[in-house]
Amino acid sequence: MKLTCTQENLTRAVGIVARSVGKDASLPVLSNVLLATERGRLKLASTNLELGVTCFVGARVEKEGSLTVPARLLLDYVSNLPSNSVSLEVSGDTLNLECGENHASIKGIPASEFPLIPGTQENPNVVIEGERLAQAIGQVVFAAAKDESRPEIAGVYVQIMDDGEVRMAATDSYRLAERRFKNGVRLTGSPTAAIIPGKALSELHRILGSGAGEVSMAFQDGQVIFSFEDPTLTGGNVEVVSRVVEGRYPDYAQIIPESYLTKVKLNQKEFSTALKATSLFSRADASDLHLAVQEKDQAVSFSAESGQLGKNDSVIPGEVEGGDQKIVFNHRYLLDGLSACGTDEISLCLNSDAAPGALLPTGDASEGYTYIIMPIKS
Amino acid sequence: MKLTCTQENLTRAVGIVARSVGKDASLPVLSNVLLATERGRLKLASTNLELGVTCFVGARVEKEGSLTVPARLLLDYVSNLPSNSVSLEVSGDTLNLECGENHASIKGIPASEFPLIPGTQENPNVVIEGERLAQAIGQVVFAAAKDESRPEIAGVYVQIMDDGEVRMAATDSYRLAERRFKNGVRLTGSPTAAIIPGKALSELHRILGSGAGEVSMAFQDGQVIFSFEDPTLTGGNVEVVSRVVEGRYPDYAQIIPESYLTKVKLNQKEFSTALKATSLFSRADASDLHLAVQEKDQAVSFSAESGQLGKNDSVIPGEVEGGDQKIVFNHRYLLDGLSACGTDEISLCLNSDAAPGALLPTGDASEGYTYIIMPIKS
Repeated sequence: MKLTCTQENLTRAVGIVARSVGKDASLPVLSNVLLATERGRLKLASTNLELGVTCFVGARVEKEGSLTVPARLLLDYVSNLPSNSVSLEVSGDTLNLECGENHASIKGIPASEFPLIPGTQENPNVVIEGERLAQAIGQVVFAAAKDESRPEIAGVYVQIMDDGEVRMAATDSYRLAERRFKNGVRLTGSPTAAIIPGKALSELHRILGSGAGEVSMAFQDGQVIFSFEDPTLTGGNVEVVSRVVEGRYPDYAQIIPESYLTKVKLNQKEFSTALKATSLFSRADASDLHLAVQEKDQAVSFSAESGQLGKNDSVIPGEVEGGDQKIVFNHRYLLDGLSACGTDEISLCLNSDAAPGALLPTGDASEGYTYIIMPIKS
Repeated sequence: MKLTCTQENLTRAVGIVARSVGKDASLPVLSNVLLATERGRLKLASTNLELGVTCFVGARVEKEGSLTVPARLLLDYVSNLPSNSVSLEVSGDTLNLECGENHASIKGIPASEFPLIPGTQENPNVVIEGERLAQAIGQVVFAAAKDESRPEIAGVYVQIMDDGEVRMAATDSYRLAERRFKNGVRLTGSPTAAIIPGKALSELHRILGSGAGEVSMAFQDGQVIFSFEDPTLTGGNVEVVSRVVEGRYPDYAQIIPESYLTKVKLNQKEFSTALKATSLFSRADASDLHLAVQEKDQAVSFSAESGQLGKNDSVIPGEVEGGDQKIVFNHRYLLDGLSACGTDEISLCLNSDAAPGALLPTGDASEGYTYIIMPIKS
């Protein structure tokens, strides 16, 4: 392999793939990045056997070839280089890297030992604006179970509906986040539904972070493949491949209440201040936060008490409709939901102290988001 | 105790003192901040028994009193509050804190259990512009020994000379940093010399970070007291008190070469890139980095090799005077010195592969800084 590319493109591309490497000490090649020439471009790839990330960048290829080298070392090395042309040349199991008067030889592992990352995307089921997809993932993925013992709920359930609506839902059985959106979505194949591992979507979210154009999404052969052009890479595109989770996603729709007795409109900033102040006193073990809605006062109070630390009580104004309520929530789940709503005004919706409550964004940017929290029995 | 102050002042003051609390589980009061009224102001104090930080802020005091409360909880609580007036009232061992509709009760420990922080500053030996003092501390303190087994060299040797020059020096016996400065210094008492613990100066550096006016410095009763007004606090001033280290500081002046055979002027940015690129291959155990100065080429090369990772060789141009040199340094010590110089151009000065080398800032901002590194014997 012998080729030249720009330091900026190389650094960006290594940055995209390097975070997705595996940490399996028994298979050291997983902590490497694959470098290979393919159709006149440089291909970079990493995998942890569950998730594969491939990135192509424009390069002047003089000689075909491939090698894998340690991801961290490569990233640290190329990101420190001056903004210039970088030449890469493989000689045996060594990558020779030159940029100006900097000459490195990095020891690698033959590409033949690198696991095959399957699948080039065929017909995408749907094409989604990158920014909308990233926002939707950010609004739901944190609610997926962290524990992998139940792989279904450690995933995000993604449904492509007949009319082109996309629904993404995640729950760890204590809270549930669902986002529905249709704007910025183009149906290009069959409607479908699948569970995508939360970790894969978090990684996609990170890569999309710096902005992407359209992302096409294909479900094929038990996998999901996301493919998009990265605007920060000249002539570069990225593919993220993950297995989908086998199994049946819980029928979460039945958890979402059809109506609410009490609705309170709250200012996001006031809500957040009161919640954080009170959270400091929520017992470390139980995390109980007491909420009281008072229609007469048009206000909501947040309180928590810790035998060791003391207590807090914060009251904020709210437009209350439908009567008083008292309920206990885990303060962390409230904070998560509040951040995910992303609007200046938020509706808190309740039925009783034993029924799930909801946070709903209100206003223009509030398209189709629902965050449900189970109460703590007091 | 009953008083009112602004949320901004309170947050800033708690932020100044809260980081200096102790972590002694057998003496829980050390992880608290003392709140007390004093001469119509609110006094906040923290100590780890080696270092004490006291901060005064303007307050409307209605009733005298005092209490200690957990530093972390207080800081988190007040920094989350809206920008408003905060009222503090002590009732028994509880601090009642009110800001708008936020009401907290924080459990405390009586002020009588809090260790006495000694000393109000009497006659300062010297008054120094805050910014210059902060810069000088930053240039030397990192070179002090981290290991406290030899407390003298875990400290910074500070000398106030007859002519008002301030000299600060630190060494861990592998490298030495010395800063001398006279601009911005006013001698207001007797010249003196003392060893100040590195940790105390690091803490002072952090507090001065956001800008301070003049800092007066007094050595009295085996202690050093720094006193200054904090411009971000309305009517507030800060005192940092530390014991000085007993013992004799090594005669470091004899380590600094009187002259150098070879001098090389290097561009800071090129130097840094070459050094970082090469450092990635320095052996984790030995950290060897090979430097070669070539007068004929007017260049310096940096190289390192690791049996496991590979190798790097970076060459940068330099104005070489006085002949070729080859020497081996620990790459970390070179990087530290390079950052501390703080100028766009830096002189690398060498005598032989067995003699200490020096990094000297050059140009306008280069007043009196010397960084000496011992070579590694190859």
